[in-house]
Amino acid sequence: MTDAEELAARVRDGELRLYELEEHADAETAATARRRLLAEETGVDLESIGDYTFEAADAEPNVENMIGAAQLPMGVVGPLPVDGSAADGEHYLPLATTEGALVASVNRGVSTIRRAGGATARVLKSGMTRAPVFRVEDVAAAGEVSAWVREHVEDLAEAAEATTGHGELQDVTPYVVGDNVFLRFSYDTKDAMGMNMATIATEAACEIVERETPAELVALSGNLCSDKKPAAINAVEGRGRTVAADVLIPHEQVEERLGTTTEAIAEANTRKNLVGSAKAGALGFNAHAANVVAAAFLATGQDAAQVVEGANAITTVDAREDGLYASVTLASLEVGTVGGGTSLPTQAEGLDVLGYAGGGDPAGSNADALAEVIAAGALAGELSLLAALSSRHLSSAHEDLGR
Amino acid sequence: MTDAEELAARVRDGELRLYELEEHADAETAATARRRLLAEETGVDLESIGDYTFEAADAEPNVENMIGAAQLPMGVVGPLPVDGSAADGEHYLPLATTEGALVASVNRGVSTIRRAGGATARVLKSGMTRAPVFRVEDVAAAGEVSAWVREHVEDLAEAAEATTGHGELQDVTPYVVGDNVFLRFSYDTKDAMGMNMATIATEAACEIVERETPAELVALSGNLCSDKKPAAINAVEGRGRTVAADVLIPHEQVEERLGTTTEAIAEANTRKNLVGSAKAGALGFNAHAANVVAAAFLATGQDAAQVVEGANAITTVDAREDGLYASVTLASLEVGTVGGGTSLPTQAEGLDVLGYAGGGDPAGSNADALAEVIAAGALAGELSLLAALSSRHLSSAHEDLGR
Amino acid sequence: MTDAEELAARVRDGELRLYELEEHADAETAATARRRLLAEETGVDLESIGDYTFEAADAEPNVENMIGAAQLPMGVVGPLPVDGSAADGEHYLPLATTEGALVASVNRGVSTIRRAGGATARVLKSGMTRAPVFRVEDVAAAGEVSAWVREHVEDLAEAAEATTGHGELQDVTPYVVGDNVFLRFSYDTKDAMGMNMATIATEAACEIVERETPAELVALSGNLCSDKKPAAINAVEGRGRTVAADVLIPHEQVEERLGTTTEAIAEANTRKNLVGSAKAGALGFNAHAANVVAAAFLATGQDAAQVVEGANAITTVDAREDGLYASVTLASLEVGTVGGGTSLPTQAEGLDVLGYAGGGDPAGSNADALAEVIAAGALAGELSLLAALSSRHLSSAHEDLGR
Amino acid sequence: MTDAEELAARVRDGELRLYELEEHADAETAATARRRLLAEETGVDLESIGDYTFEAADAEPNVENMIGAAQLPMGVVGPLPVDGSAADGEHYLPLATTEGALVASVNRGVSTIRRAGGATARVLKSGMTRAPVFRVEDVAAAGEVSAWVREHVEDLAEAAEATTGHGELQDVTPYVVGDNVFLRFSYDTKDAMGMNMATIATEAACEIVERETPAELVALSGNLCSDKKPAAINAVEGRGRTVAADVLIPHEQVEERLGTTTEAIAEANTRKNLVGSAKAGALGFNAHAANVVAAAFLATGQDAAQVVEGANAITTVDAREDGLYASVTLASLEVGTVGGGTSLPTQAEGLDVLGYAGGGDPAGSNADALAEVIAAGALAGELSLLAALSSRHLSSAHEDLGR
Repeated sequence: MTDAEELAARVRDGELRLYELEEHADAETAATARRRLLAEETGVDLESIGDYTFEAADAEPNVENMIGAAQLPMGVVGPLPVDGSAADGEHYLPLATTEGALVASVNRGVSTIRRAGGATARVLKSGMTRAPVFRVEDVAAAGEVSAWVREHVEDLAEAAEATTGHGELQDVTPYVVGDNVFLRFSYDTKDAMGMNMATIATEAACEIVERETPAELVALSGNLCSDKKPAAINAVEGRGRTVAADVLIPHEQVEERLGTTTEAIAEANTRKNLVGSAKAGALGFNAHAANVVAAAFLATGQDAAQVVEGANAITTVDAREDGLYASVTLASLEVGTVGGGTSLPTQAEGLDVLGYAGGGDPAGSNADALAEVIAAGALAGELSLLAALSSRHLSSAHEDLGR
Repeated sequence: MTDAEELAARVRDGELRLYELEEHADAETAATARRRLLAEETGVDLESIGDYTFEAADAEPNVENMIGAAQLPMGVVGPLPVDGSAADGEHYLPLATTEGALVASVNRGVSTIRRAGGATARVLKSGMTRAPVFRVEDVAAAGEVSAWVREHVEDLAEAAEATTGHGELQDVTPYVVGDNVFLRFSYDTKDAMGMNMATIATEAACEIVERETPAELVALSGNLCSDKKPAAINAVEGRGRTVAADVLIPHEQVEERLGTTTEAIAEANTRKNLVGSAKAGALGFNAHAANVVAAAFLATGQDAAQVVEGANAITTVDAREDGLYASVTLASLEVGTVGGGTSLPTQAEGLDVLGYAGGGDPAGSNADALAEVIAAGALAGELSLLAALSSRHLSSAHEDLGR
Repeated sequence: MTDAEELAARVRDGELRLYELEEHADAETAATARRRLLAEETGVDLESIGDYTFEAADAEPNVENMIGAAQLPMGVVGPLPVDGSAADGEHYLPLATTEGALVASVNRGVSTIRRAGGATARVLKSGMTRAPVFRVEDVAAAGEVSAWVREHVEDLAEAAEATTGHGELQDVTPYVVGDNVFLRFSYDTKDAMGMNMATIATEAACEIVERETPAELVALSGNLCSDKKPAAINAVEGRGRTVAADVLIPHEQVEERLGTTTEAIAEANTRKNLVGSAKAGALGFNAHAANVVAAAFLATGQDAAQVVEGANAITTVDAREDGLYASVTLASLEVGTVGGGTSLPTQAEGLDVLGYAGGGDPAGSNADALAEVIAAGALAGELSLLAALSSRHLSSAHEDLGR
Repeated sequence: MTDAEELAARVRDGELRLYELEEHADAETAATARRRLLAEETGVDLESIGDYTFEAADAEPNVENMIGAAQLPMGVVGPLPVDGSAADGEHYLPLATTEGALVASVNRGVSTIRRAGGATARVLKSGMTRAPVFRVEDVAAAGEVSAWVREHVEDLAEAAEATTGHGELQDVTPYVVGDNVFLRFSYDTKDAMGMNMATIATEAACEIVERETPAELVALSGNLCSDKKPAAINAVEGRGRTVAADVLIPHEQVEERLGTTTEAIAEANTRKNLVGSAKAGALGFNAHAANVVAAAFLATGQDAAQVVEGANAITTVDAREDGLYASVTLASLEVGTVGGGTSLPTQAEGLDVLGYAGGGDPAGSNADALAEVIAAGALAGELSLLAALSSRHLSSAHEDLGR
């Protein structure tokens, strides 16, 4: 009986729990034991899930109860020229996805952008937020606590920043609802996406608030952060990076490359992305920015659940005299080039391909650059889908007309 | 010079484009060639990305410009007993994620639910939507087109269903904004997530609309669908599956298992998930449902960008006499057990572990069951995080008090 | 001592309560007594408030604890030609407001519309809603109750309609959140705004639901109605009348009448009403539709608090070859020509001026017509303000250039 | 022929326009002439509308094309004890409405609050906003303009404040969407509601922005203000006054006064105001705050269209050991005690009854106090309606049981 078989048997016999295996064996053996157990319970051999090619131990910061890995096909688009505040030059953007036609579609947009001279991109705002909720006696106390906080941001910053080597507290904004006080802390977390940093730092600051005011902490996150929920506060005020990318494409290139006209794309954008989203009660006024965000997140080790906030994007198209102007502005793109899943082998390579793995110089510039390239990629995706939608109609209209 | 080297050279020389390689070589060689080319351009060897263990050809429906794969660690939680309309019995739920502590946290919730006798779950509504936008002359025409559509749903159904072996058109709802008419088509797509099916079927129906009415199609998707954007229409009316899960946990188990009290969890839920989300202008009134949705999606071949709609979830907690009642209702969970990424080896195994791979009997029951288990998993995640938030405070309060 | 003095004294002495005066005197005397009491308590003589010119008794269905009346200046715009489904011909629209320049601005829009040949308007959907919330045991019960309701709409209609001579139940839509079941009842309330009718009818239907299912009523309104709250459900699905108005204005008339260009108005609409509202997380994508809605509501006896839903409006502008096309679509305009404040003397005259006082023939046509004229008035307001915004800039730009 | 008859004849003959009458006659005669003209055109004598009792000339700042007045019944509730930051002591709150039962219902809440010792209220934030939209070349320029603005707030303040004797610029926040730059200016407008002040001051500041940066003004309001539209930016960040009121009611008083239990009210609030509004995609999580806001606005000369923002309110109820705690927080209540309709005779008296007419000492304190009393009134309305909803059910349940 192998070690894994023995471990599996002990779990089956109730001696061990599924999550305790790493205490009794190395990560690889523990994962093997779990697969064996699952195979017995479910009749599925888990051969593919077990056929990963990284070191199980390397994934320990990223997963528990490990059984193996999911393998997602990765494609690439590029070269994508981005003139950003941090990003510079041509980029190959890796995209991990299971949605057929996505990479091809984005790549068509990328080649259109490249032909037009590249995209411009800018990180316009940056700050990772955490917003604990406190209970107070009444609205009078809520007012006092808010006032106290506004006057003691520096004290809170001191406590918060003592917990981190990199993060800086930028701001604390109090919001009151009856006997609830929410404090939205915003941090510069440099090249880290920064949720953990922000959480730990905020916990320290909360101790000061509890000690110095009558407020009592109810939950370290009070949903005004707001993490992994569609929320207007992120769409309006931003979270992570607020980043925009745009391009000006000469009219003839629109026709050649995208097979449609500037006017047709502008009309589709207005009727679909603006009016349609308005009628839908949306926080996302775009065609499919989330597709590029998700695929780039998966290829570079970002948090897949934060695609939710990444979808808070507005696409604009303007038929200018000298061409089609298109932009996409992502209000709350949460990215990092250190921490999270960025050290996993395939993901680290994904960042490496972009040229932005690890900490940047100056600090924060790699994550800024990553945000800018993703925004440019999302722009490519928007252009390509808008073109497909408008030309599909054109072509079917042509058929109708018998041409 | 290998085939891959030769292909890479031809791309470098401008003879071939990056996306044309599959026309000149098998999928494996084409991917190798791309990695080689990228290695030259970026100096990154792409060894890990190239070290996938499935057949490149098998990924052809899922990706273009393939260079390899992202490997995401996969853990497992369970057994999770779910009494659903389709799901039945105990389940091991695989979760692919890079967020440390997530699987452990969900598993704590799962074991609490198991101890309490399991979760109940129900698919409450089901329908994949596609909403083209048409241009009309004016609001009078808009009214006429809407009226025509309401009277000809059967004709549209006939055209739509002729394109698919499985899908059924359930409903078409017209929405008008000035000279824009949006038609929201809703389909029963059985075990498929169904976006492609819905798109193709809707295209056929649009031809009828264009032929029989003065409406002219502007875009096959007009954002009232609404796909991959946070939008109230999905949170209110649903998209994919509207699914809910709940559990009743005896008070003493709340204390033993979750280390806190029913009242503390109820308070955290009210102040954070309800009041906090209200103040945030949110469409998601939950703690972190998107985390479970994202991890389960990645492990079972769902579309990662649809985590956006999966986050439209409301968590409720009620302190009842006989225990803590908790529920999570996901308004728009878009899942399938056939199509999309579900056939990829690791993802197919993920579905197999759950027992719901492929088409169900009756058709649609496997996707229903998958939705119910994910909902139950999300419930586990909600309970565990709410408990952590409330007990973290309790513990730190205890420290303060010197106990 | 007059009767009023005596009554006031008895309230002061604690013998009577402020709201009991009508039991001891006629409405006029009761109001006088209250003014006297307030004068003593506050030192304010209330001469103006007491100087109303209707019969106090006539206001009894509309107010309690009456002390007199507010007098709001009323202006008029017109003639406004409206080609509607119910409205027909030229209309003078009375507007009661305290906002200087509003009437003048709307009138400028009206005269522009008149010159262009008039507005087209259509009621696109109609239904007054009431959505009680029920408590059930769990999500399984929620599913069963929903299914029961879907199968018994006719029984519910019978019970609901037995309470009213006019209303018809059109639909009942169940929405579930955990152990909450919301049933959104929608009624055709003909010429009445219909909230009371809908409430009473729904109460009767709820008794059936409670009797036949395990659901227990918690509140007769569960906020999915949604009355007097900004809510996407109204913006998406409508409440009261969904009504749209539009106009096509030749380019030269835009310049002559509005002092700006089609392009400038289109640009202002896109950047302000579409993109700006998108970024604001809005449910209203218009310039100031609420201004016209509020002023028309006050002049015609509508419920001022329902201006909230009246603001769910989207304005579109399209620069067409043959002119500027503009539309405004109000998703949830709640109006009536019978009931509520419509019988008060000044308000009844307001409706009379429009030609739509009292019940229409066929029933509902007067309220439809009122909705269409208000929509056309809102369109006039949009045009005028958009023109002012764009020309203000033009003029100041001109000044800059003239320096 | 009277002057009015002659004027009416000249309009009829096309010699004069409807809005030019004040150039040829006094306000009274002009209004009479318009009524005569309308009478001829519509056959309605307009006797009631013409039977107003203020001086027509006094309404000239508030209306154009005046024909008379709407008379709205006004009731009163009170005394309402409010312990505020500015409000102090007992208040009689006048409410102008046409909705039967509203005043009685609010008064029941008021008497409950009074018995419980009164409400606490606080203005938590204050600022009237105006947000112009500018066009820039691209996102790079947008970033530069935003940065310039952040560095030149003092210059903008100087220009803005030069236009006003009272207003102070508090802040300017830039928001970027592609080639659009929105600048949200926030002013302390003291006792004025302040829209006009903010608009004029912002116009002056915009000239600096246009002169010093490449940004070109498109519209002085870009809808991030956001005025008279339901918008999350107001619900999150506030506009006008953010004001909250609360009360703690002993359990026995809940039963005596409100005829229900603390638990029943808490449950109704959670299921209706929190969960129901969540599911409705709402920005208002309350029962009917807009009713009190609208009626108080009409009685005190506020802008009726701003009831829209006044509806952005969250009501919370907490079943505490010592009683029912209830609060209402209005995020964006736009009120003034000078300017607008506050000088009209009946409205000025309405403010006088409250004790807050005209400018306060210190400046702004009267408007603060007005906001606090309205918030306390809204709280009364919430309590009363929640009680009615929960007890209605109780009573019908009792009937059921008694059978």
